[in-house]
Amino acid sequence: MKLLEQTCQKIFPQDTQTRALAKERLDQLTMPHWALGDLMDLALDLAGITRTIKPVVTRKVMVTMAGDHGVVAEGVSKFPPEVTPQMVYNIVAGGAGINALARQAGADVIVVDMGVNADFSELAAAGKIMDKKIGPGTNNIATGPAMSIANARLAVERGIEVSLELGERYDIFGTGEMGIGNTTPSSAIAAVVTGKSVTELTGRGTGLDDRQLSRKRAIIEKILEVNKPDPKNGLDILAKIGGFEIGGIAGLILGAAAQNKPVVVDGFISTAGALIAYTLEPFVRDYIICAHRSVEPGHKYMQETLGCTRPLLDLNLRLGEGTGAALAMNIVDGACAVLTEVATFAEAAVAEADK
Amino acid sequence: MKLLEQTCQKIFPQDTQTRALAKERLDQLTMPHWALGDLMDLALDLAGITRTIKPVVTRKVMVTMAGDHGVVAEGVSKFPPEVTPQMVYNIVAGGAGINALARQAGADVIVVDMGVNADFSELAAAGKIMDKKIGPGTNNIATGPAMSIANARLAVERGIEVSLELGERYDIFGTGEMGIGNTTPSSAIAAVVTGKSVTELTGRGTGLDDRQLSRKRAIIEKILEVNKPDPKNGLDILAKIGGFEIGGIAGLILGAAAQNKPVVVDGFISTAGALIAYTLEPFVRDYIICAHRSVEPGHKYMQETLGCTRPLLDLNLRLGEGTGAALAMNIVDGACAVLTEVATFAEAAVAEADK
Repeated sequence: MKLLEQTCQKIFPQDTQTRALAKERLDQLTMPHWALGDLMDLALDLAGITRTIKPVVTRKVMVTMAGDHGVVAEGVSKFPPEVTPQMVYNIVAGGAGINALARQAGADVIVVDMGVNADFSELAAAGKIMDKKIGPGTNNIATGPAMSIANARLAVERGIEVSLELGERYDIFGTGEMGIGNTTPSSAIAAVVTGKSVTELTGRGTGLDDRQLSRKRAIIEKILEVNKPDPKNGLDILAKIGGFEIGGIAGLILGAAAQNKPVVVDGFISTAGALIAYTLEPFVRDYIICAHRSVEPGHKYMQETLGCTRPLLDLNLRLGEGTGAALAMNIVDGACAVLTEVATFAEAAVAEADK
Repeated sequence: MKLLEQTCQKIFPQDTQTRALAKERLDQLTMPHWALGDLMDLALDLAGITRTIKPVVTRKVMVTMAGDHGVVAEGVSKFPPEVTPQMVYNIVAGGAGINALARQAGADVIVVDMGVNADFSELAAAGKIMDKKIGPGTNNIATGPAMSIANARLAVERGIEVSLELGERYDIFGTGEMGIGNTTPSSAIAAVVTGKSVTELTGRGTGLDDRQLSRKRAIIEKILEVNKPDPKNGLDILAKIGGFEIGGIAGLILGAAAQNKPVVVDGFISTAGALIAYTLEPFVRDYIICAHRSVEPGHKYMQETLGCTRPLLDLNLRLGEGTGAALAMNIVDGACAVLTEVATFAEAAVAEADK
């Protein structure tokens, strides 16, 4: 059996018995009942995911997957494609948004080259990035498929490999990405998996004006028309309208779930990766923590498809890289602390409320 | 001149020149323009508050002010009043929600006895709480004023003292409180200062049913009718319908502002304290960071009065103690890191977007 299928077979729903034990404790904490709201809901998830009422999320890693996109030839981004490798160097040097926010959260940052149009052999040899490159960027999805089915599988499986290689060293994963043009394939994936219209889903990305926005929408319609991906088949969607880093994110999420580890999913592009993972194995939803609600309008529908109506943060973020996920790691830490560190009424000899 | 007036005289608006310098840098960071949204807005505030484009918010303190409330005689809380001192002991022992979340955020917790109906002389002698006690709890505000005008001033000035005593050791303050029954005076303060109706403002507090909720609303109407506080006079409001810990919070906020330090204001009761501070000196708004949107319906209107339409978090919290403010300290840290740690396009040699 291949790595993808092996991994999916290891993904089970959250453990209901551990959730029930965690709830029993949370019900008894020295506070009005469930007064820490969403933090307590998240604490239940952490117990259900990790199979213990003393979950540990201390060792954190942000995985930023990078790839290039042939669709930039259609003029979908205000930034030139050489910004993808430039930003990889910036992240490796510690100067990007994800570095600042990961440091704040106590998380390491690992950059993975899934398919950037640049030679990173020196960075890879120096151990500064993980080399999982499939190719120097996808084909232009406005004129044909992004990649072969074989490479779609390879992208997901390399994402799984990343999760396995990092699994021993980390308790919790965060997803992130860097890839000029990747809002476009993500919007197309969102349309296919959520069934919503392109108009409902697409926004101004990194700052498009009206004319550019309607052009972007027309391009996404064309992408769907040209490629006709099968909404039930994650590898078909990825091959036809995806990106190498989006496949890598899908694999990372599947691999985290197969290891019973939580994975904090960042913004619009990361959530497109999560939708691919969900299409491959729906139980993966149980392991996904949605970090934040992006400015991009389709994000809400994508998160709803993943079963999430209340992402942890809503701060008008639209950067990507994993920045929202890094920030949300603090909230996950807080939820864990509530479950494992707060005293019960009996332990603290505090009187309970009238029933 | 008295401490309150001296303090208010030291409160100026945020420094616009430092804000402009911070904006200049944030405009040039290696990311699409303003792609970290609310974090960047918050970074401007931190620069404007601290008068430097390299603000430091490393040394954090959560100040949990405790007091008792005569209005509990009206049956406004499901918890008996002895829970106030019991929870003080729980916090001192490190077992409360605020302890777990402050530890997570790297913040110290300082408990201040502003007026708890218990003898804490041993705790105070051991340096485990700050003794600023005004009295053993307020009078029942459903039948008359909470305290004298002299004691209202004293409560605010003792809060200022706390901020001054802690100011050398900390860069940023967070507010919190513990006081069974204190949702009721806070709702009354909200009604007076925001001008909204009691029905719009009041909710189920720590879990009231329909009958209890309508009873609570009737009591708040009665409190306002009996006391008729002057909406323009913060000390009058505090004396007639306040609480000792609410006055202490108001003083802490004024004292933070007078020291050009940010103060993260927690939930419903802390925001009532902030409204008192605002009534005493409106410029104090410039120093307040609203941590989260509480479940309590009036909170939104109170925050709007303070000029905040987007608090940092919205996690269905309704605990108090400072828990939401502690959690939000992480977001403040993140905003600071964005301003001080992320490279500009020029520094990182990354190409800019088309204009």
